[in-house]
Amino acid sequence: MDNAYETISAEEHDRLAELYGPLTDAVRDLIDATIRTQVGADTIEDARIAIEAVTEKLRASQLGPTAGVRYAVEGRPLAWGNAVIGMRNPIAPPLTIHHDGGRCWSEFNLGAAYEGPPGLVHGGVCALVLDHILGEAASEGLTKPLFTGTISVKYLRGTPLGDLRAEAAIERTEDVKTFVRGTISDASGVTVEAEGIFVMPAWAREAR
Amino acid sequence: MDNAYETISAEEHDRLAELYGPLTDAVRDLIDATIRTQVGADTIEDARIAIEAVTEKLRASQLGPTAGVRYAVEGRPLAWGNAVIGMRNPIAPPLTIHHDGGRCWSEFNLGAAYEGPPGLVHGGVCALVLDHILGEAASEGLTKPLFTGTISVKYLRGTPLGDLRAEAAIERTEDVKTFVRGTISDASGVTVEAEGIFVMPAWAREAR
Repeated sequence: MDNAYETISAEEHDRLAELYGPLTDAVRDLIDATIRTQVGADTIEDARIAIEAVTEKLRASQLGPTAGVRYAVEGRPLAWGNAVIGMRNPIAPPLTIHHDGGRCWSEFNLGAAYEGPPGLVHGGVCALVLDHILGEAASEGLTKPLFTGTISVKYLRGTPLGDLRAEAAIERTEDVKTFVRGTISDASGVTVEAEGIFVMPAWAREAR
Repeated sequence: MDNAYETISAEEHDRLAELYGPLTDAVRDLIDATIRTQVGADTIEDARIAIEAVTEKLRASQLGPTAGVRYAVEGRPLAWGNAVIGMRNPIAPPLTIHHDGGRCWSEFNLGAAYEGPPGLVHGGVCALVLDHILGEAASEGLTKPLFTGTISVKYLRGTPLGDLRAEAAIERTEDVKTFVRGTISDASGVTVEAEGIFVMPAWAREAR
């Protein structure tokens, strides 16, 4: 797998993160402001025109249709375009995942962009976060090739927008299948539970 | 439930959609350009400054912390802040859901912002879409109060970024539980299947 990525130094990683991180954060803040704005029609029209001008400048040189996973640093692929953890993806909160053996966790904040029922995180966004963090646990930080086979999500109560924690751990491994469990919690405890079965792809089985 | 929303006329709905729709679409396009840009550091810095200026203007008047579900038109709540279907939410693709009795479907396109593995939709984004469309089928277009109890998602193969279709239908109802099934498909067939159990909340049971 490593050969599919361009390996970059830690210094180059930091340079690119400093280049792209603040731009992406600015777009995240714009997303929130866009959802919640109540300004008048003229200001909205001016905003649209200004945004379209910025987009045109950023499109002067573009990666072809998707960002993919282009770099690796210190043996770990950098999923900068990823919808959950992508440093360069404004729709990603983004989650920063901490690893400790077969366990991992993340503390993060979800605002207006992630809403479903009023004041609550969209149930599907909970599933998105859990799918990702279970996959991180199963693949030990995306270093092992694994695909999600199935994931089951059980909603115990509504998850409020705001500060949240997600965690996951490998429960057991049977041949090509890895069984993982995880949760999302707010300050009062667990709101959503999930279990997933992750499967090693055929090409990786043959390479064992 | 209806009393929690402000009922607006079809004309007012169209006026607000024409006001906010193009702004939100411009932010969606900016998100894609941000992920994929390869322009130089100076252009990126200029873009960040311009975006922050737009955000400040949009923040001159804001809805308090979330958008919620504020309006209803013709008896149907308008989830404009919703993370999947929200006309005012730039992270929503957004899906337009078509209803026909207990069935519903949507055709949509997912680009770079929804990527997980290179070239493929993030598995969690598939779960997000399926959670939403199963909920739409179960609640008959969000007109019935229902919460997701559990959802199980089975990944048959990777879902390519691009044109996709999601559909869902009620399978059966047992007292307070509604059982729903759905799929995501690309041009070659089904990529992901899901089944969900949706539950009527206690306050709605008492009101029956």
